Parts: sequence; C-alpha cells; structure tokens
Amino acid sequence: MTSVEEAETEETVTCLHLTFYHPCQEDKRMFRCLNFCRRERVRAEDTARFGRDSNLCHYNLMDARVSRIQFALQFYRKLNSSEFCFEIKNMSKKTKLIVDKTKLGYLNKIDLPWKCIICFGDYQILAEMQEGESMDYFETYLHLAKVPIVEERYLPSLQPVPESGISSSSFPSQGKSPIEIDEND
Amino acid sequence: MTSVEEAETEETVTCLHLTFYHPCQEDKRMFRCLNFCRRERVRAEDTARFGRDSNLCHYNLMDARVSRIQFALQFYRKLNSSEFCFEIKNMSKKTKLIVDKTKLGYLNKIDLPWKCIICFGDYQILAEMQEGESMDYFETYLHLAKVPIVEERYLPSLQPVPESGISSSSFPSQGKSPIEIDEND
Repeated sequence: MTSVEEAETEETVTCLHLTFYHPCQEDKRMFRCLNFCRRERVRAEDTARFGRDSNLCHYNLMDARVSRIQFALQFYRKLNSSEFCFEIKNMSKKTKLIVDKTKLGYLNKIDLPWKCIICFGDYQILAEMQEGESMDYFETYLHLAKVPIVEERYLPSLQPVPESGISSSSFPSQGKSPIEIDEND
Repeated sequence: MTSVEEAETEETVTCLHLTFYHPCQEDKRMFRCLNFCRRERVRAEDTARFGRDSNLCHYNLMDARVSRIQFALQFYRKLNSSEFCFEIKNMSKKTKLIVDKTKLGYLNKIDLPWKCIICFGDYQILAEMQEGESMDYFETYLHLAKVPIVEERYLPSLQPVPESGISSSSFPSQGKSPIEIDEND
C-alpha cells in the first residue's frame, strides 16, 4: 500500500472566503499587509480580528480611517447541530458595520450568512463560507476584487447573470473566484 | 466647588458576579490563582477565558481535570438595544458545559441569562449580572461559596427562602454576597 492509502482520512476544513474591494485599492497601500490568494489556518478557539493595530489584529488594514480593531470573526458550532457558523462583531466605535442590510453598532454582533456582503467606510467585502468538518481549525482565504462588489450586486439584471458573475460565484475546493486578481496584477 | 462637584459623572460598569463552588475546595488548590472578593476590570473587546493554561486564560483553574481553556465569556451589545449581555462558549472538547438546563458541547455558545448556574465536571458557578453603562469595560467579581450552589437551589422550599439564601441574593453596588467567604477563611 502507498502512504496515501494508509494515511488517515483527511478532514475538510471550513473555509471563509473574503473578497476585498476599496475604491482606492490601485496602490494597494491599505491591503499591503494582507496575504491574498492563500489559505490561512486559524485555531477554532481563536478570534480572527481585522483592523489597523497589528498588535491586536492578525489581519491588518493599513489605513488611518480603519479602527484599531474594526471587526472580529468568531467560529462556533450551532447548538444541537453539527453545523459550523461564523459570527461577526463590530469592534469600531466610530464606524457602523453593515452586513447585507443589517447595521451593527459598536459591540453588536450577528451570524454571518452563508454568503453576504460586509461594508464599513469605503470597504466592501464579499464573504462566502465553504463548509468543512474540522472542529480544530478553520481557514480564511482572502481575495482581491477587480470591480466594486456592491454596485455589481445591485445592478439591474437586464440580462441573464453570466456564469462568471459574482452572483453565481462559488468556490470548488481549490477553485479560484472569477473576481479575484493576483497581488501583482 | 469641590473636585467631586466638578468631576465628570462617573459611568457605572457592567459587573458579572461569579460565585464558585467545588466539592474539594477546602484546600483551595484549584482556586489558588483566582482573585476572589475584588472587582477586575476587563476591556469590552477582550474575551474572559477560564481554564488550566495560564498563557491562554486570565482566570486560571489549577486542576488537571480542567481543559486548557474551559469556557470563554464575551461581552456584547444586543442589536437595536442599549442592553449589554454576556455570551458563554464551551471551549472544552472533553467536558460539557451546562448553563441552567442547556448542555453545551465544544464550540457551542449561548447568551448568559441575567442569573444562572454554570456547571462543568464538579464545578458549580452562580453567575449574576449587575447592569452598567460603560461601553469600554466590564468587570468581573469572583466569590467563593461556602455551600454547594446546585443542591441549595434544588432543595424543596418547605419554608420561606431566608434573606441570606442564594435564591434571594442580589448585589447592591458595593455589597457583599451572603454566601461569599474570604480567601483566607
């Protein structure tokens, strides 16, 4: 038997794809500390924090308008269910966090829908969850959008949504999002 | 005017009173790293973690049967409300966390009722929330019970509950719980 045949079945890991857009992202200054286009493993017990202060946040946005901690993501298991879920919490006193149509004030939190758009200030983030089995870890996978996320979503659909459009985007195990671009584009 | 008259109005701070009981607490080994009978201020954005590993938990239980992180408490503000709330999350893979009658498995979480009993293993904790206004901080105030918390609660009430009983305990601003004892008792 080969080592692959003998090895224990590998667990799939829940992955949260986050596709970022900012109108001034051409110079990528605000995004220069984010690792795009690769999965990052986070321990299930840890909170994924996004914000300006790299001492407090693993996901660091280099922008004076961003709060020390802007928002935090918590991984949890729903009660009486084997389903995993993410919860998002607004950690900014200055800026509202908008999840689809729900406005979150400071310390407000909400379950992250399976697919949703997160906005604060000029930032737009498309969040898409890919289910997995592991209770020990989850993964984040950051992407960079070429075009605004919100405008595209709210465009009147005068023609059928093309397969490469955002509204039909989905993430096969190692697939690439049609709207993501390389760091060096 | 005196300095008290000139000073800004002081904000009240939400305080979570936690009264601990363990059947083998006589020697206080498991509780020797907890600071009883004094308020501790925690930043609103921080998670209060209880467990065996002092690198991961501020509230340290010295007991080989306790998990590295046993449970975590998160402070948050309810959506469309000015009300603050605590959420408890079971961080132990080995031990169920019971909040009143709700059993939480690993990574399950629930809102902490205003007054409730938290159990895991042989540990019993009476949790009582005292409302406050501050959005920047909350406080924890740990107490040690002289008598079991669960048995007392479930005793048949054949006579009126005495004023010093647990079921009537409440925490005036700087008051002492009738069931709390000093560290050195």
